[in-house]
Amino acid sequence: MIFKEELNKKADVINLELKRHIRSEECPERILNSSVEYSLLAGGKRIRPILIMSSYELFKNDVEKTYTFAVAMEMIHTFSLIHDDLPAIDNDDYRRGNLTNHKKFNEATAILAGDSLLNNAYNLVINDIINSDKDREQKILALRELSSGVDRMIAGEYVDTEFEGKEISNEYLEYMHENKTGALIKACVRIGAILAGADSSAIEKLTIYAEKIGLAFQIKDDILSEIGDSKELGKPVGNDRERGKCTYTTKYGLEKAKQMLNDITSEAIDAISLFDNSEFLKDLALYIAYRNK
Amino acid sequence: MIFKEELNKKADVINLELKRHIRSEECPERILNSSVEYSLLAGGKRIRPILIMSSYELFKNDVEKTYTFAVAMEMIHTFSLIHDDLPAIDNDDYRRGNLTNHKKFNEATAILAGDSLLNNAYNLVINDIINSDKDREQKILALRELSSGVDRMIAGEYVDTEFEGKEISNEYLEYMHENKTGALIKACVRIGAILAGADSSAIEKLTIYAEKIGLAFQIKDDILSEIGDSKELGKPVGNDRERGKCTYTTKYGLEKAKQMLNDITSEAIDAISLFDNSEFLKDLALYIAYRNK
Repeated sequence: MIFKEELNKKADVINLELKRHIRSEECPERILNSSVEYSLLAGGKRIRPILIMSSYELFKNDVEKTYTFAVAMEMIHTFSLIHDDLPAIDNDDYRRGNLTNHKKFNEATAILAGDSLLNNAYNLVINDIINSDKDREQKILALRELSSGVDRMIAGEYVDTEFEGKEISNEYLEYMHENKTGALIKACVRIGAILAGADSSAIEKLTIYAEKIGLAFQIKDDILSEIGDSKELGKPVGNDRERGKCTYTTKYGLEKAKQMLNDITSEAIDAISLFDNSEFLKDLALYIAYRNK
Repeated sequence: MIFKEELNKKADVINLELKRHIRSEECPERILNSSVEYSLLAGGKRIRPILIMSSYELFKNDVEKTYTFAVAMEMIHTFSLIHDDLPAIDNDDYRRGNLTNHKKFNEATAILAGDSLLNNAYNLVINDIINSDKDREQKILALRELSSGVDRMIAGEYVDTEFEGKEISNEYLEYMHENKTGALIKACVRIGAILAGADSSAIEKLTIYAEKIGLAFQIKDDILSEIGDSKELGKPVGNDRERGKCTYTTKYGLEKAKQMLNDITSEAIDAISLFDNSEFLKDLALYIAYRNK
């Protein structure tokens, strides 16, 4: 199958799974649930769940075993977007071409919708663990991986917030990105491998791959924020520079950032060169680096 | 031991355990960690962890087995307070006599500190499960109980927010309180029993006790918000009425609310009358109903 077809197929699977977890019953908190649904089904690229699935598929075929974690991870990613967009943090009005959650609903609802998504991601996985006879050990280890990743993501987001408009050292910039975007991407790749029962040497190689694509993802995001097409992106470009945000492009300049992106993407691909079946993950690294939205 | 001594002794244990989980290392997100510490050690009554401990002690003596859940629950309670106090939700400046988290730090920090507390509560318990050879099954079931309780708490908080300043039916008022305060209190009592491996009939009785004291807790909170001593409470009184909040006192009047509180507290005590050793839990029900802060 050609890469784009497989990517879309995987995203379709995730979208179906996400829909199965939407709560649509009549209840006093139904508007909260609508607000969760609004952001969860707003058409993300589903990169994180796809990473879980495709890392698992390096080792095993029954990819449906990863769906609970895939859905939980997308819920957590959505929680982080809703909270990051809030007026007190990034104050963004649009995301993926739609109003952000607090603009569509209100701030109180957006705060609680984020909280609810984070909590329900755990709820989902815990119930899956309770209903699992075998694979329980792997699932518990994968849940720890998820939880540590979220911890690092929140730390990275905090550093991003604190240093907005201030000069930031290279060391801090790296720390911020490793955590803010990188930690969850790394967790996804490792979760796929852990669920499949991969050995530690395989997990190590995949961890290097994950660290590289996490960094590439962030550099590409920074480049798109500077010179992307606002229609494609569904949000205005140039905001980071205006706000004095420290990003790879504002720090190193556009050309150097592009060079870094190329180098890191090659290193990611090298890290998994010894696996059979790694075609999709390699293409995914290229897609992350050269996407236009 | 007299009740107050035992209550304080238990709270001291929790405070020590909480301090062991404070992160004080030098790191780029150290201010976020300070903000977490600020709210976590702001001197709460520690009712929720004490409920876990004393419910467990109905059945077993090695109460230290509950500490991880006790700490996690207090982290979750603190997360909910920090987010509830935010300008977009309750907009409170003081809590327990101190500035609220967003007033002491800022809104972005308070949002992320709450997120971090919720996530770390899970992280803590998951690591405890991974390090447990035995009792693993009970711990996983207790974690599900926790996670469902938090889900209900967030729903209750949402309903509270949505109906601020609006007329609310008795049915909705009950739903709101059952969820906002009651769900977590119920989870605590059940978690203690689940961790101790109690049988379903014992858990059922404790669930009734928990539902009653949860409701009593909320009615008492509403009464204190109306006629409490603002110095004792560490926050202004009369705010609920001013904001048009629907509470037990604004809905039923003070006298009727007090009557309801008495009745419900008796029912709570009745529910656990057949247990040996239930003295402390009975005193705790009275304490919840007749405290002055």
